[in-house]
Amino acid sequence: MGKTAIHFDDRAIGVFDSGVGGLTVVKQLIKKLPHESIIYFGDTARIPYGTKSEEIVRRFSLEDSFFLMDKNVKLIVVACNTASAIAVPMLQNILDIPVIGVLEPGARAAATLSSRKRIGVIGTAATIRSNSYQKEIKAITPESQIIQQACPLFVPMVEEGWTEDDVTYLIAKRYLHILLENQVDTVILGCTHYPLLRTAIQKTLGPAIRLVDSGIETAETVKKMLHKKNISAPDNTHPKYYFYLSDMPYKFQEIAERFLERTVPHVETINFDQFLIEKGEQFWKKYQDLLTKVY
Amino acid sequence: MGKTAIHFDDRAIGVFDSGVGGLTVVKQLIKKLPHESIIYFGDTARIPYGTKSEEIVRRFSLEDSFFLMDKNVKLIVVACNTASAIAVPMLQNILDIPVIGVLEPGARAAATLSSRKRIGVIGTAATIRSNSYQKEIKAITPESQIIQQACPLFVPMVEEGWTEDDVTYLIAKRYLHILLENQVDTVILGCTHYPLLRTAIQKTLGPAIRLVDSGIETAETVKKMLHKKNISAPDNTHPKYYFYLSDMPYKFQEIAERFLERTVPHVETINFDQFLIEKGEQFWKKYQDLLTKVY
Repeated sequence: MGKTAIHFDDRAIGVFDSGVGGLTVVKQLIKKLPHESIIYFGDTARIPYGTKSEEIVRRFSLEDSFFLMDKNVKLIVVACNTASAIAVPMLQNILDIPVIGVLEPGARAAATLSSRKRIGVIGTAATIRSNSYQKEIKAITPESQIIQQACPLFVPMVEEGWTEDDVTYLIAKRYLHILLENQVDTVILGCTHYPLLRTAIQKTLGPAIRLVDSGIETAETVKKMLHKKNISAPDNTHPKYYFYLSDMPYKFQEIAERFLERTVPHVETINFDQFLIEKGEQFWKKYQDLLTKVY
Repeated sequence: MGKTAIHFDDRAIGVFDSGVGGLTVVKQLIKKLPHESIIYFGDTARIPYGTKSEEIVRRFSLEDSFFLMDKNVKLIVVACNTASAIAVPMLQNILDIPVIGVLEPGARAAATLSSRKRIGVIGTAATIRSNSYQKEIKAITPESQIIQQACPLFVPMVEEGWTEDDVTYLIAKRYLHILLENQVDTVILGCTHYPLLRTAIQKTLGPAIRLVDSGIETAETVKKMLHKKNISAPDNTHPKYYFYLSDMPYKFQEIAERFLERTVPHVETINFDQFLIEKGEQFWKKYQDLLTKVY
């Protein structure tokens, strides 16, 4: 009875993504939670995840989480839509810290925003094949009609820098016409790279269709979870940001600034294979029973 | 003096690639060397290599070679152009079996075919940045003019199945116009996926330009090397083919048949991370001195 003591936890929030796209989520976390430290891991050596099998996405997501847990994070945000769609329930079962993906917050926002309950979902091949967005939206508003479309060329196109080009519009029209035919009123940008195609996507779909970017919704969910678990950082914390990558992409700062909209400090390239060789056995032993399905 | 004894070696030839594209090289090896067994490793879990750093391409190539050496191969063929351009000299230094990449045979064929010594090279970003084709061609014919162009969207476009589409021609024109402006007479298809775009590339460049596919040239080089080292398989060998992948791609057989032009038997998905955890230390110790630069 009586007052509950307020606890603080100044450990960092861990964020992982298949590459640098997850920096769009970091941007929202920094905005919404200015006192929280963040440790980011971008698996640039094995990117992309969205073209690969569910088994691989689950395994890589687990390994990425091991790397963050080895850095003593208090909560993990899965910034990658593909990993969110495929690996989050498994991570929540296995790990003993909270895990939040971008899928549920994005689905919830779309279900709320859509007035006619006709929702489009675009994402990588793996995200769309998993049907995870569809299941999540149906769980919130069972009457919704969901139209899904994989857009495999969007990510390489963004990485080529062709975000408003003849090619962009030709490919966007090819992928998105099915959403127009099905008269959706809301579309989830189900991949961290797609907000960079926002203009081309909006022009192709027309101004009446609402686009949902999961980053903002996810930051709000993280804030609530920290509060609920009593693990927020104290208000006087001066946050620290660390960025780890498994490969240093060519022109990294240039690309990163497109996503984060600021310079990325403290970037370190780590040898992830060496991490696996040194620590893999240890994590394997710790989670042996739970991992048999994954490994 | 006198006659040299003829030795035979019925161990398999090892072939690795970043994915399934290297099957185009396997096709040529089977045609040219019908008695040789082949063990193929496609690193489909970490594909692509062509967008990544030289350091990563070298490390992955070495790990892929370790996997093949663990299978007791007698020679390694690097079927991936990116790995050939970046990792072959290192592999030749470190490993104690012969290593043959697709780059040198392709460069040699182009240098021979080109009458005006104006040669175009197209490939992944990493292949082109490495300048390896340019250096190799210049070593053969120093007077050659080399025009290089990275074509990052070609691979995802082939994987989307858009090999003769409006999008294909728009993108091909965008990438290839610089080769036409520079009046090349020969173009090296410097990526295993590009032979599948042969029609579109030939139409875009016009019928007078010769296209070089390294697979055929590489098989010839392998044949000579086996002979030189006295490690050919006996003529009565019934060859065996084994295909290992680090991830089972969606619709694998369909994709593989496009490259190999036959059904792929004995396909096994292996957990490459587990291989590294179990065997990494052992290889690390064996090659410790040589590897410090790579790891």
